Amino acid sequence: MKIHPMWEAYPELQSELIQTIELIDSKIHLRNKPIEHALIDMMHTGGKLVRPAYTLLFSTFGEDHDPSRARALAAAIEVLHMATLIHDDVIDDSPKRRGQKTIQSKYGKDVAVYAGDYLFTVSFKLLTDYSNSVKQTQINTKGMERILMGEIDQMNLRYHQKITVRNYLTQISGKTAQLFALACYSGALEGGQNERFARNCYYIGSHIGMAFQIMDDILDYSQTTESFGKPVLEDVRQGIYSAPLIYAMRENYTVFKELLGKKEQMTNEDTAKVQQLVIDLGGLDEAQRLAGKYTDKALKPINQLPASPEKEIIRKVTVSLLQRTI
Amino acid sequence: MKIHPMWEAYPELQSELIQTIELIDSKIHLRNKPIEHALIDMMHTGGKLVRPAYTLLFSTFGEDHDPSRARALAAAIEVLHMATLIHDDVIDDSPKRRGQKTIQSKYGKDVAVYAGDYLFTVSFKLLTDYSNSVKQTQINTKGMERILMGEIDQMNLRYHQKITVRNYLTQISGKTAQLFALACYSGALEGGQNERFARNCYYIGSHIGMAFQIMDDILDYSQTTESFGKPVLEDVRQGIYSAPLIYAMRENYTVFKELLGKKEQMTNEDTAKVQQLVIDLGGLDEAQRLAGKYTDKALKPINQLPASPEKEIIRKVTVSLLQRTI
Repeated sequence: MKIHPMWEAYPELQSELIQTIELIDSKIHLRNKPIEHALIDMMHTGGKLVRPAYTLLFSTFGEDHDPSRARALAAAIEVLHMATLIHDDVIDDSPKRRGQKTIQSKYGKDVAVYAGDYLFTVSFKLLTDYSNSVKQTQINTKGMERILMGEIDQMNLRYHQKITVRNYLTQISGKTAQLFALACYSGALEGGQNERFARNCYYIGSHIGMAFQIMDDILDYSQTTESFGKPVLEDVRQGIYSAPLIYAMRENYTVFKELLGKKEQMTNEDTAKVQQLVIDLGGLDEAQRLAGKYTDKALKPINQLPASPEKEIIRKVTVSLLQRTI
Repeated sequence: MKIHPMWEAYPELQSELIQTIELIDSKIHLRNKPIEHALIDMMHTGGKLVRPAYTLLFSTFGEDHDPSRARALAAAIEVLHMATLIHDDVIDDSPKRRGQKTIQSKYGKDVAVYAGDYLFTVSFKLLTDYSNSVKQTQINTKGMERILMGEIDQMNLRYHQKITVRNYLTQISGKTAQLFALACYSGALEGGQNERFARNCYYIGSHIGMAFQIMDDILDYSQTTESFGKPVLEDVRQGIYSAPLIYAMRENYTVFKELLGKKEQMTNEDTAKVQQLVIDLGGLDEAQRLAGKYTDKALKPINQLPASPEKEIIRKVTVSLLQRTI
């Protein structure tokens, strides 16, 4: 099995991640084989697996570290992530994800909605089958609940041209940072670390997630459709305005007003215009600075983790993850 | 709080059901208050609450009966049911449910997809917060998984004019009977009954669910839009062919071929024509016979349950539920 090349530098972790994916594969069973294969394919094509990687890494600090339980937890986190991706694609009517056709565009909305639901239950099944306590399941359930509350709460902000940086940060905190936080926090607890240590890992994960999402939003403005594997500025058409655009609108709101007012009717030409305006008005640089702030916030407590080979990997992975070339 | 009048005859159970709904209300928290209220409203408007009622009733047979745990389990079952209803309405683009606007038609697809997801996690939260064992959570997770596998597997059969009664039974087994089975089975286990007893309850629930769904499908052909609270034969337009139609097609396939071939383009006139044809060809009578078969299959083991006031309620509720006037 092949996973993202970024893990080649860490052979042990790479092997753990492969076993995590194999565990997931073994839990996906449908009589409808084409859909089963589509889900398994999706699991194999190009996801970076950063969330389960953090779970595995943070589980090594405790005294009760059990690799097979840690893998089940990592698998649950990744499957949960997949479920939300499939539903995101339903909501956005996205034709492609990671350069591949989405489940919805291949099999229709009905299959995509139920496939996401099915993966939610697979995630819970992984949690309950391997967890050593009801408490671990509770923690994850609560984390998942918070993620979905965040998704719903952000709906308010669609097409909101007066969106502030603060609104944006609340939004990505629910959408992305919570799952990173959960990955690190529940990993630490699973390994047997105490609540105080795990809380610290929660904040590390949250900061990583914030920086990660800001970087992702920057990429949206700095890539072409071909290089990115999905349409550029599709989010803007859908009314989701992220950091680069918000900063650019702060510089000069009037140039965007009419363009954004077209909402779903924005043409590819319109979005290209928005992209160029954002670059010209320095929106990318400002967003880059914001991402840097969160990267620093994550790296400081990472540097204070107890010395171990895994600590070094966490540091290196975080640095390389958050310095993706724009 | 008002719940469906069918429970007025059983004051104790009625009070338990009200407490179950109150428990659910207390678990639904969103910053977005309009959506929070919409979800709570949906919980309060007209659902029959048969699934949680069976859970409560079957939990009384064991020696370890704990009303507060049983209510949490019943609540989890009802919330899971709600989640699937919301997603069903997304898939079918239904404008109304129980005479009320659906979440999707009120707030859009995005909110409806995430609201369903959120309710899935609320359901799991109820399970893990109150369950006395990981095992109970495992059972429910496995049950939920099977329900969603069933939903996905039935997708194959849309617009399939050669659908057989056997196909139909497999379909409704996954879609409806599994959740009834889970409600009864997990109720019995929660009360402390042994696996053998609970298995029996599983089959009782499954038979009730089969009969219930067949009755529901019959209603679709025997009511007008106004009396039913949702469009008549909407399912047929969506390519879901149920017992009455399948039996009628067995009598005379050719009269349906062209009408059904129009798929989503079927007009209200077309569906009215299908409705009349099904009645004329005796499809309703045959379906009624099929429902009766499952009702009998459910009532026989119900009669053999240990004598108790709850056994009597189970019997009466099942009889009245499955003899809804057509």
